[in-house]
Amino acid sequence: MKVSVIGATGYAGAEFLRLLHNHPRADVVYMTSESHAGKPVAEVYPHLRGIYKQTLVSLEQLDEIAAASDVIFIGLPHGHAMAVGKKLVGKAVKIIDLGADYRFDDIDVYEQWYQVKHVHKDAERVYGLAELNREAIKQAGIIGNAGCYTTASILALAPLAKNKLIDPSSIVIDAKSGVSGAGRSAKLGNHFPEMYDNFKAYNVGGHRHTPEIEQALTKLAGEEVILSFTPHLVPMSRGILSTCYAKLQPGVTAAQVDQAYEQMYGDEFFIRLLGRGGYPATKEVRGSNFCDLGWHIDQRVGRVIALSAIDNLVKGAAGQAVQNFNICCGFEETMGLLNVPVYP
Amino acid sequence: MKVSVIGATGYAGAEFLRLLHNHPRADVVYMTSESHAGKPVAEVYPHLRGIYKQTLVSLEQLDEIAAASDVIFIGLPHGHAMAVGKKLVGKAVKIIDLGADYRFDDIDVYEQWYQVKHVHKDAERVYGLAELNREAIKQAGIIGNAGCYTTASILALAPLAKNKLIDPSSIVIDAKSGVSGAGRSAKLGNHFPEMYDNFKAYNVGGHRHTPEIEQALTKLAGEEVILSFTPHLVPMSRGILSTCYAKLQPGVTAAQVDQAYEQMYGDEFFIRLLGRGGYPATKEVRGSNFCDLGWHIDQRVGRVIALSAIDNLVKGAAGQAVQNFNICCGFEETMGLLNVPVYP
Amino acid sequence: MKVSVIGATGYAGAEFLRLLHNHPRADVVYMTSESHAGKPVAEVYPHLRGIYKQTLVSLEQLDEIAAASDVIFIGLPHGHAMAVGKKLVGKAVKIIDLGADYRFDDIDVYEQWYQVKHVHKDAERVYGLAELNREAIKQAGIIGNAGCYTTASILALAPLAKNKLIDPSSIVIDAKSGVSGAGRSAKLGNHFPEMYDNFKAYNVGGHRHTPEIEQALTKLAGEEVILSFTPHLVPMSRGILSTCYAKLQPGVTAAQVDQAYEQMYGDEFFIRLLGRGGYPATKEVRGSNFCDLGWHIDQRVGRVIALSAIDNLVKGAAGQAVQNFNICCGFEETMGLLNVPVYP
Amino acid sequence: MKVSVIGATGYAGAEFLRLLHNHPRADVVYMTSESHAGKPVAEVYPHLRGIYKQTLVSLEQLDEIAAASDVIFIGLPHGHAMAVGKKLVGKAVKIIDLGADYRFDDIDVYEQWYQVKHVHKDAERVYGLAELNREAIKQAGIIGNAGCYTTASILALAPLAKNKLIDPSSIVIDAKSGVSGAGRSAKLGNHFPEMYDNFKAYNVGGHRHTPEIEQALTKLAGEEVILSFTPHLVPMSRGILSTCYAKLQPGVTAAQVDQAYEQMYGDEFFIRLLGRGGYPATKEVRGSNFCDLGWHIDQRVGRVIALSAIDNLVKGAAGQAVQNFNICCGFEETMGLLNVPVYP
Repeated sequence: MKVSVIGATGYAGAEFLRLLHNHPRADVVYMTSESHAGKPVAEVYPHLRGIYKQTLVSLEQLDEIAAASDVIFIGLPHGHAMAVGKKLVGKAVKIIDLGADYRFDDIDVYEQWYQVKHVHKDAERVYGLAELNREAIKQAGIIGNAGCYTTASILALAPLAKNKLIDPSSIVIDAKSGVSGAGRSAKLGNHFPEMYDNFKAYNVGGHRHTPEIEQALTKLAGEEVILSFTPHLVPMSRGILSTCYAKLQPGVTAAQVDQAYEQMYGDEFFIRLLGRGGYPATKEVRGSNFCDLGWHIDQRVGRVIALSAIDNLVKGAAGQAVQNFNICCGFEETMGLLNVPVYP
Repeated sequence: MKVSVIGATGYAGAEFLRLLHNHPRADVVYMTSESHAGKPVAEVYPHLRGIYKQTLVSLEQLDEIAAASDVIFIGLPHGHAMAVGKKLVGKAVKIIDLGADYRFDDIDVYEQWYQVKHVHKDAERVYGLAELNREAIKQAGIIGNAGCYTTASILALAPLAKNKLIDPSSIVIDAKSGVSGAGRSAKLGNHFPEMYDNFKAYNVGGHRHTPEIEQALTKLAGEEVILSFTPHLVPMSRGILSTCYAKLQPGVTAAQVDQAYEQMYGDEFFIRLLGRGGYPATKEVRGSNFCDLGWHIDQRVGRVIALSAIDNLVKGAAGQAVQNFNICCGFEETMGLLNVPVYP
Repeated sequence: MKVSVIGATGYAGAEFLRLLHNHPRADVVYMTSESHAGKPVAEVYPHLRGIYKQTLVSLEQLDEIAAASDVIFIGLPHGHAMAVGKKLVGKAVKIIDLGADYRFDDIDVYEQWYQVKHVHKDAERVYGLAELNREAIKQAGIIGNAGCYTTASILALAPLAKNKLIDPSSIVIDAKSGVSGAGRSAKLGNHFPEMYDNFKAYNVGGHRHTPEIEQALTKLAGEEVILSFTPHLVPMSRGILSTCYAKLQPGVTAAQVDQAYEQMYGDEFFIRLLGRGGYPATKEVRGSNFCDLGWHIDQRVGRVIALSAIDNLVKGAAGQAVQNFNICCGFEETMGLLNVPVYP
Repeated sequence: MKVSVIGATGYAGAEFLRLLHNHPRADVVYMTSESHAGKPVAEVYPHLRGIYKQTLVSLEQLDEIAAASDVIFIGLPHGHAMAVGKKLVGKAVKIIDLGADYRFDDIDVYEQWYQVKHVHKDAERVYGLAELNREAIKQAGIIGNAGCYTTASILALAPLAKNKLIDPSSIVIDAKSGVSGAGRSAKLGNHFPEMYDNFKAYNVGGHRHTPEIEQALTKLAGEEVILSFTPHLVPMSRGILSTCYAKLQPGVTAAQVDQAYEQMYGDEFFIRLLGRGGYPATKEVRGSNFCDLGWHIDQRVGRVIALSAIDNLVKGAAGQAVQNFNICCGFEETMGLLNVPVYP
């Protein structure tokens, strides 16, 4: 398959290039960057020297890109992908967007949280979280790839919501991410000496991944889920750990909780169940597409605490997109994604 | 005042030595270590070269130590301080214990969570968190210095509990600590390559700081508080950030929340109020005795989220102990603790 | 090919498992560990969950291991591989040893620096640094894989030595390694809080990689090379940067230096020449088998400064071993080693 | 003494504020910042909340600043301090400049390396490295405070140069610094995800600290010293380790080397001699004004390797400036500088 990467010089874009290089059925034809168009990609990312010889082009060449590509991966900030998507209507090219533009069923929710008018409201779009939505992804023309925090959080809570084991009004998600999640733009808050040996929260009550998690859990639970979500920055490059709290419904047993996870994920290759009492660690998934899950039941307080770890740039971005690519192209779902976590 | 440090070679013990060196009214006479007795302390901690010439002695010399000291700081693992305290009954020496042995009003709670028989149950002891308990500390002979996670968590929630602004059954505390909190004993989990660029939770539902936080908040709230507490390890040396969630009682306004913090802490030197919307960061308190506090109100979910940052070895251990020392000795409370955070 | 890993639970052993998993022609049959025999490898290294189901066995089963294997990788501390090698004499199995036992032409040098009697002196052995020794490796039965510091240092200086561009008595190598180079045994010096935010040298004038570098450069230069080598620990997990200084011989031009690098490495896949003025960075090779090289000529002092970066566990250990494996098995040299560096 | 800090919002400027806060004889009256004039300093550096209430002013108020100050500390980029100094000619105010403008005896050397015209060539200036130049500093009106790399490197080599124990043409200095040395301006190279878990050299053969080290060692040696100096960035906030190599002159004994260090530094409070075989570590001096020194003699190659560790922002910048301030004001040299390293 011919694939192109729109917005190739963000961290997720570069991660695409890493993963696609070892994908037996994907051939990268174009990669774009508005700020670096005309430069070899290996000049912008020297770790790609000797691997990618391509030169970055501008999005202005979208027609040529579309003509030459079977699938287009988009790694642009929200608000830009829908403009691209709109231009590609009627072209024989699938779109897998890493951003938020195609993630929401309810465009109002999108517009309210992202504070931008949606320009491609009628797009037939599919939410790109394979473990929840595999059948729809198979047929999809536009996939709104799930976000990083959202992937970790939804996967941790989905079995509980789906089986109605928890009180949907009691959910608290306390999530922690490595700094690559904040992108490659240098700014004071992420300047090395400021962030090293430092830990802080940000965007309490206002992070845009909140409604995306709510949308997914609401569907699973069959009733409205409104929750607290708090992101934090960890002084490390990659990785997300999501700590999810919820009140168990009266009478729910530990065995029921265990069973919910087993039933939903027992056959999922990329979800590794550490079981009740398990402790996922971000380093144990680094560089891989795995999502490690553990859960704990605190009888004293009547809560379940679910823990999930992913690499934010892999299962939280480019890896998940490749997984969706495999599904919608009819390839083996794990193709190009069998790399072992880089440890230590 | 003549002071001695029992258990001087743990990280908190070493931090005592750092702080006491600049304290105008404290003179360190003895420092003990069972594993390093007979060695100069600067051999065990080379950063102390040229500063402390003393040799470590064994606790077997407790009688001489007590005779030579006005105050004894204890930095031993739980279960050991009470044995020391019992031996010192009747001696004219005050005890400030960093461990848990003297923190609990209800010995049963201690014995249940720490799984050890208490041998000094009738000790007249005072809980050593100055901002809550200053008057009692003034008169105390034995001070059970508050723990690290507990200090951060209690200070964040105290104004809310005291003013009955929150539902006491809804509290979730998600806390994160630098690795020095796990002590100086080398073990695989804290081996550099394992913990670097890694993030994980531990001890979900079972951490011993839980009942200590509950004890303090129960007293403040005037009703029983049972809560969820989850500790995490951050790949950094020092610092704790505590993210505390609670449901607001119906009708509570943002102004009431703000006022609760202002009233309780407006005059506290070591508590810096960043206000509603503020984001404490561990690096901004590193090396200092400050506790930085910010709080957020998420109307959508009806929760308040309070954030606190401390240096686990200072306000969470040795600094708080020096603060208590100052109070119970009648010194200026900030004496020896005016050092500015080391930033960046 | 059937391969086994002796000493699979050190970091280099685990890295073998990572690389071999994606090698199309290698099938791991046995993995040994004396301290963990009987446990699943994924219990010792949880990042391998869902990837390797094998159980670790003891080296006592060496006969069965040898019978079932075409190639044996050894990741044991020096002094142990030669005992294994001796036992395997006459068996139809190739050996690739990561340690020092088979690296030296002159056994006396080995015995003097490693302070151990060699028990397999007459082994037909080949030094396993492919870029220097490819032809010999093709035929080899026992390969003494080059060390981590040595690989970085030799590759940086080889073109200069071979072309007699530098004064062989003037070489100073100042090398820096991530902490994984010190192994997985927890000890105080590498305890997270001690090593984080810290930098130090060790083993000045006495590191055992010194004679190995000297051996290689002496051969290339055709005259005896005696040099200074100083290792340092960097607070990071992986990566080596080697900064190599040498006096240029009178009259040597920058063009000659450039040409020496181009001629020697222009066709090498795993050596990426950043050119004169280039600055390799450890992160740009992380997780990959690349060695990035840059060089600088300081006319003012008459020295060339060559810089090299490798991942100590890949090109400095397991990756290089797989490269040697490919060569001696007649496979494409890059097989299983085409993974892109994990950045950032 | 009334002191002001010109350029208070760089890292060295902020470090001044940290140190001066605990200095019993210094009172900060003005602090300037062109980019943040009008803002409270605690808004620019939140770790200073509750400690400094001052508002930053512009350098345009230089006359008022000078009139109100006894001593002015300058933390501006090179090229700017000399303009300030020139304007202050004739005013009763001492100047301690952290930059390079007043460090050089030979203005030509300055102009050549810094590529800027000097505008205050005839200033009576003194080089501010107390251990070498104490007497001159006592009388100084303008002090060119020694640089960070230079302090570490000169102190390591001074006893050897002064006693003519080394070949002055053989010196190689390989230095490593934490990222705070690169300043507070956010840029890609020091963006957290780029620099974390990364190590690299920069500015090989061209770093401006080179001629400063040469100037000092040339004076000590009594003959011209031309040397190699290579800086590297370590993924940590603070700290410099300098590894210095030199050929021993024929016949020099280890005892002579030891004696040289003892004689020169035996009475220096801020220099801690770890002795022959000692290994300084940056963390052991963090936050303090100490310079830790160790040295090694490698008989095999005829070289001495001297190692020094400092905190680049303390002994390498603000701490050294305070030390010079104490000297030129007639205070106890250690005043305000007795803080213990922050460890771990």
